[in-house]
Amino acid sequence: MLHITSHSNPTIKAIRALRDKKHRRDTGLFMAEGLRICAEAVEAGQVPRQLVYAEDARAHPLIEKLAGIVEASGGTVIETSRDILHKLTEKDNPQAVVGVFRQTATTLEALDRSTAAIWVVVESLKDPGNLGTMLRTCDATGAGGVILLDASCDPFSVEAVRASMGALFTRTVVQTDGPSFLRWLRTGPGMLAGAALEGARDYRSVSYTAPTFVFMGNEQSGLPPEYAEACDELVKLPMLGKADSLNVAVACAVLLYEVLDQIRR
Amino acid sequence: MLHITSHSNPTIKAIRALRDKKHRRDTGLFMAEGLRICAEAVEAGQVPRQLVYAEDARAHPLIEKLAGIVEASGGTVIETSRDILHKLTEKDNPQAVVGVFRQTATTLEALDRSTAAIWVVVESLKDPGNLGTMLRTCDATGAGGVILLDASCDPFSVEAVRASMGALFTRTVVQTDGPSFLRWLRTGPGMLAGAALEGARDYRSVSYTAPTFVFMGNEQSGLPPEYAEACDELVKLPMLGKADSLNVAVACAVLLYEVLDQIRR
Repeated sequence: MLHITSHSNPTIKAIRALRDKKHRRDTGLFMAEGLRICAEAVEAGQVPRQLVYAEDARAHPLIEKLAGIVEASGGTVIETSRDILHKLTEKDNPQAVVGVFRQTATTLEALDRSTAAIWVVVESLKDPGNLGTMLRTCDATGAGGVILLDASCDPFSVEAVRASMGALFTRTVVQTDGPSFLRWLRTGPGMLAGAALEGARDYRSVSYTAPTFVFMGNEQSGLPPEYAEACDELVKLPMLGKADSLNVAVACAVLLYEVLDQIRR
Repeated sequence: MLHITSHSNPTIKAIRALRDKKHRRDTGLFMAEGLRICAEAVEAGQVPRQLVYAEDARAHPLIEKLAGIVEASGGTVIETSRDILHKLTEKDNPQAVVGVFRQTATTLEALDRSTAAIWVVVESLKDPGNLGTMLRTCDATGAGGVILLDASCDPFSVEAVRASMGALFTRTVVQTDGPSFLRWLRTGPGMLAGAALEGARDYRSVSYTAPTFVFMGNEQSGLPPEYAEACDELVKLPMLGKADSLNVAVACAVLLYEVLDQIRR
């Protein structure tokens, strides 16, 4: 167990650098904040390579247990100050625990679509908070995970991990491009239901069959036409307001709960 | 029309201070970013008291039109640099337009529940992004607006206005406390449907009647027991995952779309 008190400690600096996408890519690591999320990760079989905790929280039984698991697996346990945790998390009230994990992205080839009745596909999603929220909704609805197409945001960013509330550790994430996904999709069973405004049917009038792939466009522009054309169904939510728009994670959740309801019936 | 080039200009400093809750409370004003949102505000009958735009965007026809409306209503139009807009919005790519508006909160006594079939009620909601997202979903589902109870966040914060995508201007916002709301609720028709995990029925098995008040607890702890007891129905979404939780704005949206579907049928 290391006890670190210096902000300029190279281990602390390396963890802090994981806030940066380039550094995450170079190391294949990422950071997750919070005791609950780190405990859920361990329960899902992902033990942190490094576990940092606040010295004043040392006696917490769950931290003691986590620290034991990390050391037993060959990882490093680091005790430090709240001040240094604040530097790591950039939060005013930092969590007592930060874990450093290996990124576990799945390839399309390795993805077993039969493990879930519902999957989410997103095209060039920009906001990591939206991505994390979608992963959290996947967890709640039993959806297998999120397939990220094209220029989507990084699922291992601090914001995405935070918004996923631990679901990043229990759901599958695939990063690929649109043409590769569409080729893969048609090598097996699957209904591609794209969220669209034009040429779309009311989402409740469509019959969904497992596995359903719910396909969301990005925050600004929705599904590009060539992707909309590749869908088996285009579906839309009623939009009674002036804005004709919903947050993409919200729209995705309403669709997921409709698909779930039909599949469970 | 003012042309301001100095960061220390008192008008700019006063607008910038609207990022701070105390200053918003003292002045009764708030800030909204973006041409589209400011234009929607005007369409909804709320003309900015001050309109700030980037000098390089001067020739945009919609900005010219907005500026004319603001001046005709006795407001102030300010032309400035992108750099100063960056200071106002704290965004790397600032919007070309910022509007300063009067806060228009409604009291319970002035609220006409018959104007919408659905209303949202939230208890001590913490995150202004969640509140803004809920307002946006209210717009899409035709819900009248959000009644904020107890220690909820400020609907006029920059984050809430941004996430609402203009819905703050088309929806009603009421700030009150739980006992006052419950007394007011029972002075007229209304079904109070609270989101809960314990003692709750599946949200799709409940019959909703207009006006339905969808009642959400806060992000950490859900509905307090005394509020749950006051509900006509407690409803829950299926939670198949480990986390047993959803983002509150996501859960609210799934409920709103179910109520909407029943009420339209």
